[in-house]
Amino acid sequence: MTEILPSYVRDEWWLPTAASDATVLRDASTGDPVVALSTDGLDLAGALEHARTVGQASLGDLTFHERAVLLKQYALALNDRKEELYELSKRAGATARDSLSDVDGGIGVLFTYSSKGRRELPNSRVYVDGPAEPLSKDGSFLGRHVYTRLPGVAVQINAFNFPMWGALEKFAPAFLAGVPTIVKPASPTAYVAEAWVRMLVETGLLPAGSLQLVSGGVPGLFDHLRLGDIVGFTGSAATADRLRRHESVQTGGVRFTSETDSINASVLGPDAKDGTPAFDAYISQLFVELTSKAGQKCTAIRRAIVPAASVDAVVRALGEKIAKRVVLGDPHAEGVTMGPLVSTAQRDEVLERVAELEAAGGRVLLGSTDAPEVTRADGTSGTAEAGAFVGPILLGFGADSPDEVHRIEAFGPVASILPYASLDEAAALVDRGGGSLVTSVATDDPDVAVTLMSRIAAYNGRVLFVGEQNARTSTGHGAPVPHLVHGGPGRAGGGEELGGIRAVLHHMQRTAVQGSPDVLTALTGIWHTGAKARVDRHPFRKSLGELALGDQVISAPRTVSLDDIESFADFTGDTFYAHMDEEAAAANPFFPGRVAHGYLLVSWAAGLFVDPDPGPVLANYGLENLRFITPVSPGDEIRVILTAKQITPRETDEYGEVRWDALILNQNDETVATYDVLTLVAKEHAPAA
Amino acid sequence: MTEILPSYVRDEWWLPTAASDATVLRDASTGDPVVALSTDGLDLAGALEHARTVGQASLGDLTFHERAVLLKQYALALNDRKEELYELSKRAGATARDSLSDVDGGIGVLFTYSSKGRRELPNSRVYVDGPAEPLSKDGSFLGRHVYTRLPGVAVQINAFNFPMWGALEKFAPAFLAGVPTIVKPASPTAYVAEAWVRMLVETGLLPAGSLQLVSGGVPGLFDHLRLGDIVGFTGSAATADRLRRHESVQTGGVRFTSETDSINASVLGPDAKDGTPAFDAYISQLFVELTSKAGQKCTAIRRAIVPAASVDAVVRALGEKIAKRVVLGDPHAEGVTMGPLVSTAQRDEVLERVAELEAAGGRVLLGSTDAPEVTRADGTSGTAEAGAFVGPILLGFGADSPDEVHRIEAFGPVASILPYASLDEAAALVDRGGGSLVTSVATDDPDVAVTLMSRIAAYNGRVLFVGEQNARTSTGHGAPVPHLVHGGPGRAGGGEELGGIRAVLHHMQRTAVQGSPDVLTALTGIWHTGAKARVDRHPFRKSLGELALGDQVISAPRTVSLDDIESFADFTGDTFYAHMDEEAAAANPFFPGRVAHGYLLVSWAAGLFVDPDPGPVLANYGLENLRFITPVSPGDEIRVILTAKQITPRETDEYGEVRWDALILNQNDETVATYDVLTLVAKEHAPAA
Repeated sequence: MTEILPSYVRDEWWLPTAASDATVLRDASTGDPVVALSTDGLDLAGALEHARTVGQASLGDLTFHERAVLLKQYALALNDRKEELYELSKRAGATARDSLSDVDGGIGVLFTYSSKGRRELPNSRVYVDGPAEPLSKDGSFLGRHVYTRLPGVAVQINAFNFPMWGALEKFAPAFLAGVPTIVKPASPTAYVAEAWVRMLVETGLLPAGSLQLVSGGVPGLFDHLRLGDIVGFTGSAATADRLRRHESVQTGGVRFTSETDSINASVLGPDAKDGTPAFDAYISQLFVELTSKAGQKCTAIRRAIVPAASVDAVVRALGEKIAKRVVLGDPHAEGVTMGPLVSTAQRDEVLERVAELEAAGGRVLLGSTDAPEVTRADGTSGTAEAGAFVGPILLGFGADSPDEVHRIEAFGPVASILPYASLDEAAALVDRGGGSLVTSVATDDPDVAVTLMSRIAAYNGRVLFVGEQNARTSTGHGAPVPHLVHGGPGRAGGGEELGGIRAVLHHMQRTAVQGSPDVLTALTGIWHTGAKARVDRHPFRKSLGELALGDQVISAPRTVSLDDIESFADFTGDTFYAHMDEEAAAANPFFPGRVAHGYLLVSWAAGLFVDPDPGPVLANYGLENLRFITPVSPGDEIRVILTAKQITPRETDEYGEVRWDALILNQNDETVATYDVLTLVAKEHAPAA
Repeated sequence: MTEILPSYVRDEWWLPTAASDATVLRDASTGDPVVALSTDGLDLAGALEHARTVGQASLGDLTFHERAVLLKQYALALNDRKEELYELSKRAGATARDSLSDVDGGIGVLFTYSSKGRRELPNSRVYVDGPAEPLSKDGSFLGRHVYTRLPGVAVQINAFNFPMWGALEKFAPAFLAGVPTIVKPASPTAYVAEAWVRMLVETGLLPAGSLQLVSGGVPGLFDHLRLGDIVGFTGSAATADRLRRHESVQTGGVRFTSETDSINASVLGPDAKDGTPAFDAYISQLFVELTSKAGQKCTAIRRAIVPAASVDAVVRALGEKIAKRVVLGDPHAEGVTMGPLVSTAQRDEVLERVAELEAAGGRVLLGSTDAPEVTRADGTSGTAEAGAFVGPILLGFGADSPDEVHRIEAFGPVASILPYASLDEAAALVDRGGGSLVTSVATDDPDVAVTLMSRIAAYNGRVLFVGEQNARTSTGHGAPVPHLVHGGPGRAGGGEELGGIRAVLHHMQRTAVQGSPDVLTALTGIWHTGAKARVDRHPFRKSLGELALGDQVISAPRTVSLDDIESFADFTGDTFYAHMDEEAAAANPFFPGRVAHGYLLVSWAAGLFVDPDPGPVLANYGLENLRFITPVSPGDEIRVILTAKQITPRETDEYGEVRWDALILNQNDETVATYDVLTLVAKEHAPAA
């Protein structure tokens, strides 16, 4: 009997005691059984509750940065064992190139989230969104937005085509947000998901309850979900539709986000004629999207939208590339560049869709639906029998393309080519897809880019422009990058994943907070003007651990003379008339006459607030949001108030960032300038000798 | 026969030719007919198509700032005529105080969006979200996120309680985004909506197709909606649920956002004992929320969550306030402080809900369900007969509050008081509401704020803290402000409105764009490093109209000497050891030895790039995102490249903002510092004399 694939629930590996209902998974190339699935008797409600209690507690103990550091350790652990993952993936039909996007791609997502988490999130548990909004004239009442994590569990329902990348791109942002995950892999490739989960478990670094895996069916899952839980679904539009209609989503407040395959387009710009680098880039991209993962990608190009005059050239160039590059076969065999579909069921489904497209008027321009010649694992060749093989197929349509080509997806190595006569028509064709994950455009003409974008942007989650400048550096039509959102409107599911920190925030609740400066300071970890301040020893003499929000230095005043302004102009070369010419300065709408340089003021301010001796403050690495409010005339006096505003210790360095609120006032207590000073401060420091 | 209220469709006023199905609306205090509603024969599909074609075209011609300027003109026009709106509102039961929130509140939203639109959006049509993400090492391939407007229509289905504020808070962000609006007011107060729409039409300043009004039923509306359209719904959870289930939302890609009334809570902090300012603030707020709009507010306090020991004090204080302040009656009568509910149907509904709460264990502690004494329009008093009057009612529950009190909403002047024993219990009670628009907390203890917030934030769209510091300046529990999001998870509808520019973006599609620096520059209106640049005459000599993105000045080099560093230290007083003490500087982990001050570098950079004579550049008003990358040692040479990065003409001034990309390099072409310089530049200027 085929072995049952274990699940990982409540921090333990689990197998059914009886598994009469087990589903057998088969090797995509040979049809040999690989493993079987059954969740007979699994306590799903218990797993969810474990996440909501134990998982929430253990993740809640960690800050964003601590979670981010763990993600990097997970990435390193998987990276060390990726050969094992490649081997397993071959059984699902993945070639070495396919595993680059799934295995290496998945590990890359962990690295990116680890890095972005530490650079773009505070080292705390609350994310502040946007600036403080003054709601009273006297500053005693403010508003601000904060994100706090959802109090439930993230249930991640993945598609079969990316058992690793597709799961990790959901797991990483949930983990970083502090929301525990339950992974529900798609059946056909569940053994790859089991493998990476096992590798993470074996690191011993998973917080209790933070990750669970259900290898098999999840009957009644949605009945157990409630407000505070979130479901991330990737798969077919039909399944998404069915799940979304559940009461727990419709009225129960469960968040549901879906990413469904879409009828993505790729437009050849009118300027990208045969022989141009943009044309070549277009063909390369079309080839890659048709053959990688055997076209089983929700982002693959389904519609090649091409100037009518270029259709023949595209078909010819693509055909040549296929003939030269495609070696279809079992990924275990050397030299194979394109594998089978994941299962014979999937193959049959694809061939049915192709038949529908043909019935709607499509002509097969390249490839065929007959059983192809393939290379077997032992290197021999022959007509495909047991395996799920389909070679690349390009269908051609006329100018009046039928709705079917914009609606029917053959989820395999299948694309259609559609001619267009004008940019307007090209845009209209793109939009007929009813919402896509991605559209790409090959052009070197920014006007073409702008015109198309204004028409297609709202129908796409991502739009990629490729041309001569970046034919080689483009990350590719079909490859979502963790920095940018992945998802799209309408047919594409209406969801949004990735996009860096954006995906973390999708696992959190945005809440407006109103209150006093003291309350906002306590809630956000950011000192707000008007909140309590402490003036004792100079804050530059305090290590990161000693420093507290509100620690402040109030400088002595210093008078600005005309001599000072002239010396500064002389020293810097900045002889702008507002500083040098009384009459011209007075004619300027913003100045009463000659005024001090803004740079003089901030330079002096540093002189006024600095404590010069070696100490914990290591460097001023930048400055933000500087605004000059009131001009300073000769004879005016300035002073500066510097207050510790945000303290961000680094997890892996002996120092951290301190942001200081700087306020320059004049002799009438008018605000001259406001800004933030950014410094690096040591966690510990020896007292000055 | 009662007059039919007109609709405004396809830029014309419309009345049914026959109106056999008309619904008569009645005065809330007297039951006299006011007006009737019928949309018999209205071409709804035509109205939608008008918005999608004519409305999209006319709004698309305008930039964000041009739309923002129009919003201000609308606000001014309504402000001039608000007495008319107050008068009409009285018929719906609104007192002068009630109209402050609805009429003045609605006008305030227009003013805020006008101002935020010009301060926080570019003067163009595309909104850029977040920084550029480098996707290739050589800078030839970048990613970025842009928002472009939805290509359809915003259908706004409003609630009866705020016919003006509730409609304008949806209209303003849609308009600013460039999406045409169709307003569907709630029947009972449709005549107030008709009035403000008429006033806007009469300004002559509405772009064609940008605003339509349907006064009455909209049968089949959702059948006509499609991808690119957005529905904003405010009203009951049951109606929201029904609408959300329509195919056009479930699978058609129509965006649906709902804001439904919720069982909001207000917590009296354990520190806010009787006699403290926080206690008084709590009582005042509870009183306002119970009586204003006769409690017909989706944000009203339904659950007063109070330390068990303070329940009696709260009931007594609230009772005293009600006795002293409430004069129930027809808002037409002088001295009336609380009006009727909007209709007798609404009154009956509220009394039914109160009966349900009593059946669940609630005891009436204040008020009564009997017909109250009221003041009539002529000043006489008597028991309410025709009108929809209900006086304030407070129900009391024990420690083990039943689910009903967290679920049943009496949408009128009705609240329940619930005792708690610990903060943990108070938080659990708040969360039992299943998602609220707002929870308020009266406390002066930041620890109480932090503890409660960590438990309740994810269940609330807004949390307000009131205490001694802001008892007088708080904008109030029940008052959404345009700067902050309004909406909440779960029971509150799961939507988000307002929140400043956030609501504008809800009417737009976020799309990731990938491409070369030239393409990203063209698409975003922001110059990207690596894009084309132009070096001709000094860009400071170009007016706003002459200046183009990429206009650049490359300075001569200048060598920094130890003398320079010492002079600068002497002049500014900034004698930080990294500039002054070779040994100590070398011991610092970031410096090779003594280095130049960062402020010296940016000051010199200004001297290097400035063109000193009077010209179109009026002022440097600030600086952003300054980062010091490579330290500069004595003997190093710096130069600066300044490039026009973003040009934002102001609509109502003779100048605009220009953001410059500043890059300081050393003699090895290493980046010393990067920042943005912010200047004001005149639209026109006379050549220097």
